[in-house]
Amino acid sequence: MSALVELTIFPTDKGASVSPYVARVVKIIRECGLACSLGPMGTCIEGEWDEVMAVVTKCYRELERDCDRIYMLLKADCRKGAEDRLTGKVRSVEDKL
Amino acid sequence: MSALVELTIFPTDKGASVSPYVARVVKIIRECGLACSLGPMGTCIEGEWDEVMAVVTKCYRELERDCDRIYMLLKADCRKGAEDRLTGKVRSVEDKL
Amino acid sequence: MSALVELTIFPTDKGASVSPYVARVVKIIRECGLACSLGPMGTCIEGEWDEVMAVVTKCYRELERDCDRIYMLLKADCRKGAEDRLTGKVRSVEDKL
Amino acid sequence: MSALVELTIFPTDKGASVSPYVARVVKIIRECGLACSLGPMGTCIEGEWDEVMAVVTKCYRELERDCDRIYMLLKADCRKGAEDRLTGKVRSVEDKL
Repeated sequence: MSALVELTIFPTDKGASVSPYVARVVKIIRECGLACSLGPMGTCIEGEWDEVMAVVTKCYRELERDCDRIYMLLKADCRKGAEDRLTGKVRSVEDKL
Repeated sequence: MSALVELTIFPTDKGASVSPYVARVVKIIRECGLACSLGPMGTCIEGEWDEVMAVVTKCYRELERDCDRIYMLLKADCRKGAEDRLTGKVRSVEDKL
Repeated sequence: MSALVELTIFPTDKGASVSPYVARVVKIIRECGLACSLGPMGTCIEGEWDEVMAVVTKCYRELERDCDRIYMLLKADCRKGAEDRLTGKVRSVEDKL
Repeated sequence: MSALVELTIFPTDKGASVSPYVARVVKIIRECGLACSLGPMGTCIEGEWDEVMAVVTKCYRELERDCDRIYMLLKADCRKGAEDRLTGKVRSVEDKL
């Protein structure tokens, strides 16, 4: 079952500008070996459930080191027998336009 | 660090009425031993990150048994040195009204 | 079509404790005349789409007055021919437990 | 105040494959005149609050025509004195990597 997850995670005790914290999270995601894509409102990751959730936990642990309050949003779309959905879902919509 | 998580999870390949599937998930959450609260748009769970995430994975595995497509939303508010936030956050707002 | 909406809205430029801001929003929602319910991760509102969205905009305008950055999450479940879903959805799940 | 919004909206009464419905929504967004960007888990739109919310309502009305149940997620990040954040937020993170 392919798990396509969009992760948004940031501290809320560090003021309004949090891109240095987001960068630390994105670095972890890019080095995790799974397909991923950075967007303006979150980062998409594709893999098996356990793989993706292990990365999400790693991102949380990274911020937990020096942040006292963390907000996180996870949106997941999981589908059996599907793959390459990071690009495939967009293409499937584009084909119908 | 207290993790207060709101979980919304349902299949999208079983038609518009999914309460039997939601009930299976809520049963798992209620039996997990963590503080929880069922609402109209999701179920809140409070605990340590690893405890809460283990329950979320258990819920996903339950639906994965007979669902081909699953949608999930996770909203998490994690705070150091805080506890009893399932009731405490609402009370803190009510006190200011 | 009944729109059941869960609204989470808070400033991210006011530090980690934002309950005074959330209280201002909840006050607006409670005085709007629609069915509503305050939870630990958001406030649910039920009504017709235009009614609910007008309240959401009013909440945003309230925070916009003195906040420089605002984060918002809206989860909506809209269903034709349905009503009283603020309590009905929870009851429908409870009946199956 | 720039409103950067990620919209995810789909029917839950049309089976597991909903890209034809998503395409109708994306068509509306692309023709609305605001900056936008299609991603695997939602479409980002940037503009003033009222402009963006008018587009969101138009998308909802389009699906309401022939869908009996609609699920929607809206994630908004609103910031005073900011603009071009659809590309600017990603660039700001990339610069720190």
